[in-house]
Amino acid sequence: MDTGSAPNRIGASPGKGREPMVGADSRPVTLVDVAAAAGVSVATVSKVLNGRSDVAPATRGRVERILAERGYRRPARGMPKPRTEYEEKEYQGKLIELLFHDAGTPWSAEMIRGVEETARLARVGVVVSVLGSGARAGKRWLEDLVARQPIGAILALSRLSAADHRRLAALGVPAILVDPDGELHAGLPSIGAGNWGGGMAATQHLIDLGHRRIGVITGPLRMLCCQARLAGYRAALENAGIPYDQRLVGHGEFTYPTALAATLAMLEQPEPPTAIFAANDVQALAVCAAAHQRGLRIPRDLSVVGFDDVPMSQWVTPPLTTVRQPIAEIGALAARSLLDHTGGTVDLPTGRVELATTMVVRESTAPPAP
Amino acid sequence: MDTGSAPNRIGASPGKGREPMVGADSRPVTLVDVAAAAGVSVATVSKVLNGRSDVAPATRGRVERILAERGYRRPARGMPKPRTEYEEKEYQGKLIELLFHDAGTPWSAEMIRGVEETARLARVGVVVSVLGSGARAGKRWLEDLVARQPIGAILALSRLSAADHRRLAALGVPAILVDPDGELHAGLPSIGAGNWGGGMAATQHLIDLGHRRIGVITGPLRMLCCQARLAGYRAALENAGIPYDQRLVGHGEFTYPTALAATLAMLEQPEPPTAIFAANDVQALAVCAAAHQRGLRIPRDLSVVGFDDVPMSQWVTPPLTTVRQPIAEIGALAARSLLDHTGGTVDLPTGRVELATTMVVRESTAPPAP
Repeated sequence: MDTGSAPNRIGASPGKGREPMVGADSRPVTLVDVAAAAGVSVATVSKVLNGRSDVAPATRGRVERILAERGYRRPARGMPKPRTEYEEKEYQGKLIELLFHDAGTPWSAEMIRGVEETARLARVGVVVSVLGSGARAGKRWLEDLVARQPIGAILALSRLSAADHRRLAALGVPAILVDPDGELHAGLPSIGAGNWGGGMAATQHLIDLGHRRIGVITGPLRMLCCQARLAGYRAALENAGIPYDQRLVGHGEFTYPTALAATLAMLEQPEPPTAIFAANDVQALAVCAAAHQRGLRIPRDLSVVGFDDVPMSQWVTPPLTTVRQPIAEIGALAARSLLDHTGGTVDLPTGRVELATTMVVRESTAPPAP
Repeated sequence: MDTGSAPNRIGASPGKGREPMVGADSRPVTLVDVAAAAGVSVATVSKVLNGRSDVAPATRGRVERILAERGYRRPARGMPKPRTEYEEKEYQGKLIELLFHDAGTPWSAEMIRGVEETARLARVGVVVSVLGSGARAGKRWLEDLVARQPIGAILALSRLSAADHRRLAALGVPAILVDPDGELHAGLPSIGAGNWGGGMAATQHLIDLGHRRIGVITGPLRMLCCQARLAGYRAALENAGIPYDQRLVGHGEFTYPTALAATLAMLEQPEPPTAIFAANDVQALAVCAAAHQRGLRIPRDLSVVGFDDVPMSQWVTPPLTTVRQPIAEIGALAARSLLDHTGGTVDLPTGRVELATTMVVRESTAPPAP
């Protein structure tokens, strides 16, 4: 776990080194205390502290007065240490909500693993829910979620409407987005992998092997993570002086059939690629299948790189070279951020936090045939 | 969904066709009413109704008196209809617990999908937890589970100790076991696939293709489901007059490395098999990898059948012939049983319910080379 990627504490205190001021009961005043006294949510107090504009002036005034009266002090600058021990029963019986469009993918299994492992340390239960996308999401999911009174929600959702994001915020449930989204909605914090760097590393690996005609099968380009992976691919080509060729860019939807069709089309060109970078592992398997249909051997006739490193990547023949996303670690960090936020002294990360990807070289890549 | 496999209602009523007796408020008296009046759990009332011996005599007397006073009538004989609609907010805010030893496998992803889909219809949240096995399971998981006051628990656990099963029962949390266990513990109901029939169908498929030397890579034989799959394999051989040969039985632990080693050893024999049935899909991929290491082509030189039909089975090259376990349906039935049990009119299934498997023929099997 890269502790350097842990969420930032709220702002910075210039008074480093001084003793923190304490409340009447000799305990440092927390955001929770202030929120309770002001009759607002912790998120609202945090907004005031961070100078956000989306707080009503009267509320802001009340919160600021209480902050001053109680002698609230922002925690000292620096990253919070990841907690591996929680006070006995501090959070027992509480819940974190984890939402997917599809809970049956290898990606979602890894995310559940990471969130659950961290939540379990704090004795918090993880509620896994599946949502339709767009209009199909309906309103019930949000009512049901709020009825369970969770300490927060982790959204592995790429297709939640802006209206849904606003409703979630309005209901005061702290929420964090995790990839595969990559889009920033309604100011929600977001945790994901370094998609640009991963796309670049995958492409660079193929260039290093001697490939020059390198294809890419993208994911849905409405998702920022897919745009970033494609941009990383372009950057690596550019650095190596290889021209970007639209004919080598196939479009998938993070699904097997779309990637299969895109690869088959690409392989029919007069100058087909000698290597293909696929934007996730399921798509990489579709590239392998397309190659097989065309009588091409992996990696002798075509090198393939995937993205994610879901467990099955190591089990297929040949085992897949891929870009490892720290999916479980992303989930763990999201869960820890919600727990720390609930504790009241640490704010949720603002903007986007990215964890590094790792290149995992297995047997689906080799130098191009001479 | 095979509604014929839905849980049985409590016992049987000889008075079929008569109007059910009703309570003072003209509503049929339910187990919940009786339990509340007697100051015991619904499970205890159900035990009394089913003549179980593990109820204290005084309690039994009190429950029986109230049953008589209130005019409780067992629901009519017959299978309950699966509910797809629940009363608005009947269960909103309530939880079902789903426990695994490992939540990161393709199998667990399917199980989560099935449980969540059914629970969501009833607006119930699904809490996914991971447990160590045996002594490592500790006691905290059970305390934490009880603190969340779930309506019941679905245990996808093969290695829970008898003591843990007893503690769970003592705490009054209705629980259902789902495969991969297959073992019956402490009288808990169990839902799984027809493992014996699946093992037989897989082997019969290979026999029908013309294979005579058919190997098997088992799962851990301490698990009843693995014993049943192996027994199905033996039965198919026997029916075809093919002698059972211990040298063609390799032992895996439902993991890739154990299956790889077992297959490599089997392929080194003077008379290697021309086909192998693996007890799950991950092991089937290991069989494919072992074949590849020995220079054998699938299915030309070696046919391979898996078990489960997890999503990745269709994505690998060649796509895997496998025995489809209705994993999501098993999860859905377990969830529905808990919901109906909570409703108070339907008891949990007793003993074991099995849903049928289906043979899914793809491209990893073919007639043996001439």
